[in-house]
Amino acid sequence: MEKTCTDALPLTMNSSEKQETICIFGTGDFGRSLGFKMIQCGYSVVFGSRNPQMSSLLPNGAEVLSYSEAAQNSDIIIVAIHREHYDFLTELAEVLNGKILVDVSNNLKINQYPESNAEYLAQLVPGTRVVKAFNTVSAWALQSGALDASRQVFACGNDSKAKQRVMDIVRTLGLTPLDQGSLVAAKEIENYPLQLFPMWRFPIYLSAVLCIFLFFYCVVREVIYPYVYKKKDETFRMAISIPNRVFPIAALTLLALVYLPGVIAAILQLYRGTKYRRFPDWLDHWMLCRKQLGLIALGFAFLHVLYTLVIPIRYYVRWKLRNITVTQIANKDNPLSTSSAWHSDSYLALGILGFFLFVLLGITSLPSVSNTVNWREFRFVQSKLGYLTLILCTAHTLAYGGKRFLSPSTLRWCLPSAYVLALIIPCTMLVIKFILIMPCIDKTLTRIRQGWERNSKISSALNGKTDI
Amino acid sequence: MEKTCTDALPLTMNSSEKQETICIFGTGDFGRSLGFKMIQCGYSVVFGSRNPQMSSLLPNGAEVLSYSEAAQNSDIIIVAIHREHYDFLTELAEVLNGKILVDVSNNLKINQYPESNAEYLAQLVPGTRVVKAFNTVSAWALQSGALDASRQVFACGNDSKAKQRVMDIVRTLGLTPLDQGSLVAAKEIENYPLQLFPMWRFPIYLSAVLCIFLFFYCVVREVIYPYVYKKKDETFRMAISIPNRVFPIAALTLLALVYLPGVIAAILQLYRGTKYRRFPDWLDHWMLCRKQLGLIALGFAFLHVLYTLVIPIRYYVRWKLRNITVTQIANKDNPLSTSSAWHSDSYLALGILGFFLFVLLGITSLPSVSNTVNWREFRFVQSKLGYLTLILCTAHTLAYGGKRFLSPSTLRWCLPSAYVLALIIPCTMLVIKFILIMPCIDKTLTRIRQGWERNSKISSALNGKTDI
Amino acid sequence: MEKTCTDALPLTMNSSEKQETICIFGTGDFGRSLGFKMIQCGYSVVFGSRNPQMSSLLPNGAEVLSYSEAAQNSDIIIVAIHREHYDFLTELAEVLNGKILVDVSNNLKINQYPESNAEYLAQLVPGTRVVKAFNTVSAWALQSGALDASRQVFACGNDSKAKQRVMDIVRTLGLTPLDQGSLVAAKEIENYPLQLFPMWRFPIYLSAVLCIFLFFYCVVREVIYPYVYKKKDETFRMAISIPNRVFPIAALTLLALVYLPGVIAAILQLYRGTKYRRFPDWLDHWMLCRKQLGLIALGFAFLHVLYTLVIPIRYYVRWKLRNITVTQIANKDNPLSTSSAWHSDSYLALGILGFFLFVLLGITSLPSVSNTVNWREFRFVQSKLGYLTLILCTAHTLAYGGKRFLSPSTLRWCLPSAYVLALIIPCTMLVIKFILIMPCIDKTLTRIRQGWERNSKISSALNGKTDI
Repeated sequence: MEKTCTDALPLTMNSSEKQETICIFGTGDFGRSLGFKMIQCGYSVVFGSRNPQMSSLLPNGAEVLSYSEAAQNSDIIIVAIHREHYDFLTELAEVLNGKILVDVSNNLKINQYPESNAEYLAQLVPGTRVVKAFNTVSAWALQSGALDASRQVFACGNDSKAKQRVMDIVRTLGLTPLDQGSLVAAKEIENYPLQLFPMWRFPIYLSAVLCIFLFFYCVVREVIYPYVYKKKDETFRMAISIPNRVFPIAALTLLALVYLPGVIAAILQLYRGTKYRRFPDWLDHWMLCRKQLGLIALGFAFLHVLYTLVIPIRYYVRWKLRNITVTQIANKDNPLSTSSAWHSDSYLALGILGFFLFVLLGITSLPSVSNTVNWREFRFVQSKLGYLTLILCTAHTLAYGGKRFLSPSTLRWCLPSAYVLALIIPCTMLVIKFILIMPCIDKTLTRIRQGWERNSKISSALNGKTDI
Repeated sequence: MEKTCTDALPLTMNSSEKQETICIFGTGDFGRSLGFKMIQCGYSVVFGSRNPQMSSLLPNGAEVLSYSEAAQNSDIIIVAIHREHYDFLTELAEVLNGKILVDVSNNLKINQYPESNAEYLAQLVPGTRVVKAFNTVSAWALQSGALDASRQVFACGNDSKAKQRVMDIVRTLGLTPLDQGSLVAAKEIENYPLQLFPMWRFPIYLSAVLCIFLFFYCVVREVIYPYVYKKKDETFRMAISIPNRVFPIAALTLLALVYLPGVIAAILQLYRGTKYRRFPDWLDHWMLCRKQLGLIALGFAFLHVLYTLVIPIRYYVRWKLRNITVTQIANKDNPLSTSSAWHSDSYLALGILGFFLFVLLGITSLPSVSNTVNWREFRFVQSKLGYLTLILCTAHTLAYGGKRFLSPSTLRWCLPSAYVLALIIPCTMLVIKFILIMPCIDKTLTRIRQGWERNSKISSALNGKTDI
Repeated sequence: MEKTCTDALPLTMNSSEKQETICIFGTGDFGRSLGFKMIQCGYSVVFGSRNPQMSSLLPNGAEVLSYSEAAQNSDIIIVAIHREHYDFLTELAEVLNGKILVDVSNNLKINQYPESNAEYLAQLVPGTRVVKAFNTVSAWALQSGALDASRQVFACGNDSKAKQRVMDIVRTLGLTPLDQGSLVAAKEIENYPLQLFPMWRFPIYLSAVLCIFLFFYCVVREVIYPYVYKKKDETFRMAISIPNRVFPIAALTLLALVYLPGVIAAILQLYRGTKYRRFPDWLDHWMLCRKQLGLIALGFAFLHVLYTLVIPIRYYVRWKLRNITVTQIANKDNPLSTSSAWHSDSYLALGILGFFLFVLLGITSLPSVSNTVNWREFRFVQSKLGYLTLILCTAHTLAYGGKRFLSPSTLRWCLPSAYVLALIIPCTMLVIKFILIMPCIDKTLTRIRQGWERNSKISSALNGKTDI
């Protein structure tokens, strides 16, 4: 009664019930892998090929026929063929009439063709119902089962029943179908697998520019200046000392940039007296890449922590500490300065607590964690804890500076210490934020955010009250 | 043939097939955002409004009609209106008869009304089929696509076909529907978005109390005592030295509290001779917040690690080390004490290994990681590795104490060193656990857990053997 | 109109619509928990029991009948009974005819019986439609709602409509059904909950062997050698110094082993001139456990970082540094050696950057993170960033060695320093990789990977061009 396949495909169906047959045009890598997976999940698979006799390496249990014969076996035809070779499908128009064609193709470049492959296919064989799907899945992952990257399969199509059937197949294969609407979405779906971190691009450029600027600023102050004035070779500072100034400054600045757009938006809303006007595009984009900015800031903070903790292992530091000890022996008396102890301990403690909260923020932004909290909790963590982190890190930097802050003796070629630069944006932002949360202003802002408008027409005022 | 929307909504359906139309009552923020998303995903949307002419900012492609006209267009009506304004729906009872009303409302406070909004709606318009859904999703997230927090949409309703249709819509929008049963569940669903980490509350209070107590204990011993007896100002210890005692003690105690309820449960089962009696409520609650206790303990352990690693950077420590060196020069001879080297290295090594396993435990408790392991693996990690972590951390603390443990010279005002407090719960627990895993006791316990009862009636003994 | 259950089960359905009734055979822990959950989610549940009068602890709202009476109430019967007691079902063959039997059983050992429990059940009662499901879920998790481990429910069965109905129930209970095909898959499904990290076994054994070998290698060089020649007791090195050699070497070697199979595969493909031949089994297995190897390597790297950062806190190190200071006082003059500063700082900086990228790799391999990136991004991170990590870590080790590398003075009993061993595999691999990416070789390899074959027949050449 039961028939086991001979080769790693043990999952055939009982003959008592008719299995669904799916036809795959094309016997390339992807077609074969998809067929393999489908047979494994209980489908019957028929391949359509130009040379049915010469196709090799096909999964066990699959039939290979000519295109037109294969098409007659199934309602659903997966077109695993490059777009440039779609032409031959016009000849099969009659056989394909009314069938569901699944376009799985990808391009080599973003926006390579004026219209998406799926739309092109739909124009080519007008009698069919074209569904775009499976283009985000890799052949290797299908075959090996190692679906490490996305299990998401975007699907779109103009015929929702056809789309639903394809999405059912996706689900049966253990993947997650995501309905993207009509075939117009195909272009976006085809571009998706070609993207390389589009949301990360701007934050990465920004932080790269910031780092390079800060690096050269520090090189001028700490390598070139002593070389010019004291002929001292301090180039070794470029390995650890200077990065350990650049990274914390970049981290604090980027963290402040995460919360700045929220403040700007609040000022805009206060100024306009309504929330019903769109923000400028740059502000919208900025708001959408806050998570990325924050994570890059966390990366820099992590590097800062590591660079700081290796300090006592460094040859240079050990050499310096030895010299201090040696000179001290001459002086003999060396009482403990309680204020120095307080200063050193408090800025370290502030930094540790700030970093700890920063790591917490990072963990809650992991997709699986943020998916288990509700919006109130998410906002609490990202906003309340976020501001606390920013305050702690700013205080850490201020305490680090201590009395040296802006003292003229630290100026070199009129350049202040690098950490002073780190304080500009966070301090400005915290001051504005502090003004915004003062009761009188906060009340107005809250009313605006609940739908109140300074120059309101009747309708929106009413709606603002009645509707969610 | 295809018609692209002019404004960021490119995904209209092909006219060849009838799109499903959904009606949204209310043109507030949430109603508009939901409509926007629905149009994007291929639905046709009709808004119902009090003032159809005056509604603005609606998504492109949506129609606005009066309530009754809009309702006639669709089987499914989303009621995006505040509960206080539901009354007007009674006038539409005839039009709404037999239709699916989706209640998306939230309240401002937990348990604000005696009955849930959805049940109130169902009573108000008895002829309709009310489904509660979408209340956990934020308007901003829907519109911007940045669904960082929960994609979960809880749905409940008395009519399962209606509920199924709403859940299909949820799925099409790219969200995850979770069936919560009948409309009685609406109260819980409405309370959900108002919750702020309910499972974390007790563990956080507990650890806060613990930390405050330990902090004052250490302040008394290490700041007030030397001030009273030696007039020394040691207040700077409050920044790093004392937190670095408080955090590890809190971490170890909380970690022991994670495993304590399991031990108590085992004793209870042994005492009662059956597993078929419910545990007292406090034990049940304790067991359900073990994960949270463990993660807070991990947080403290992480802080302890950071505080420990900055030790050599601290001014006070450098000052002390310098003084030791200076005094040594007088003595000249200073042979390496192998036992001191062993002592210092072994407690550091134990601490590092304990922390490493603790981090592993933390990582496996991430939802996405724990979701990829089976129960046997999960229990292996959380129980076997967990106990190993506890043993290593307890050993780390014992080794840290070394010979000083309970020696009278460390008593100050009869108070022992703080780390001694850390050992009470873990050591007690490990001793009891050790007794429990002795073969004779373990055998009885295993039998009880497999369904055996000391004073068994026939039926349960039989069932215990036959049934799973 | 609405009826609330009295006991923690508030979710009964409205009487206006008929609820689906499900029958559960067996009133053991699992049967009861499943029944509890089903009632909570709106199903009506009837238990079948040998002694209906004597069953206790059943969820509120459930009925208990004799087996045959219970079976008549529902199409779907969940068999929550141990396999050894399935026999009695043959007597009920008539009542069960045509019904869906859900086998939820597990075994105690992998491959305990020749055929799976579900197949055995299907043979025993041939007229029924058997579906395997729910065996991966724990009773405690169902009842407490703490579904920390897998929510995945694997389902298989020969009748796809029956399977579909069971999967719908799974979905309603808030779990994730995964269709595994026909009943032949039941064996694998039954083995799944008994597995203990099968993919991790080989990597863990390998790294354990590696660590033990390296440990003894270092003990010979650093403990036994000085003891034999200088009668010095250096055993305390076994706590930190030696582990801190073993872990980084293991980390670097394992990281190189992650990328080695890719290089071997490329060489094989170049040698064979085609990608259409299967790799040897050992290579396939190696490729599938690369992620595990990498994560273990990351664990070792993390330990190495911790062990390195505690260095300045160690008694032994402080003692040594003091002695250096004391001797220096005699010599007086001790200029800063810029080259030493460069050397120390650069290997530390390389190590930090390498570790930072390594942590990034680790984070992107978290299931929830890797699920949000597309294949291009995943490959970019795992391949480009991975190679960069390997290069940085290898450079860190080379820089650590510095001039001492292979100098005869470091040999002890002809054994080179341990770090030299760490360099063998990574350096070999990087050299081969460097040769492979030279334009002439890379071009051939790319062509082969796009389907070109050195000794190609027409069909595959054509297919390679046309099909995906």
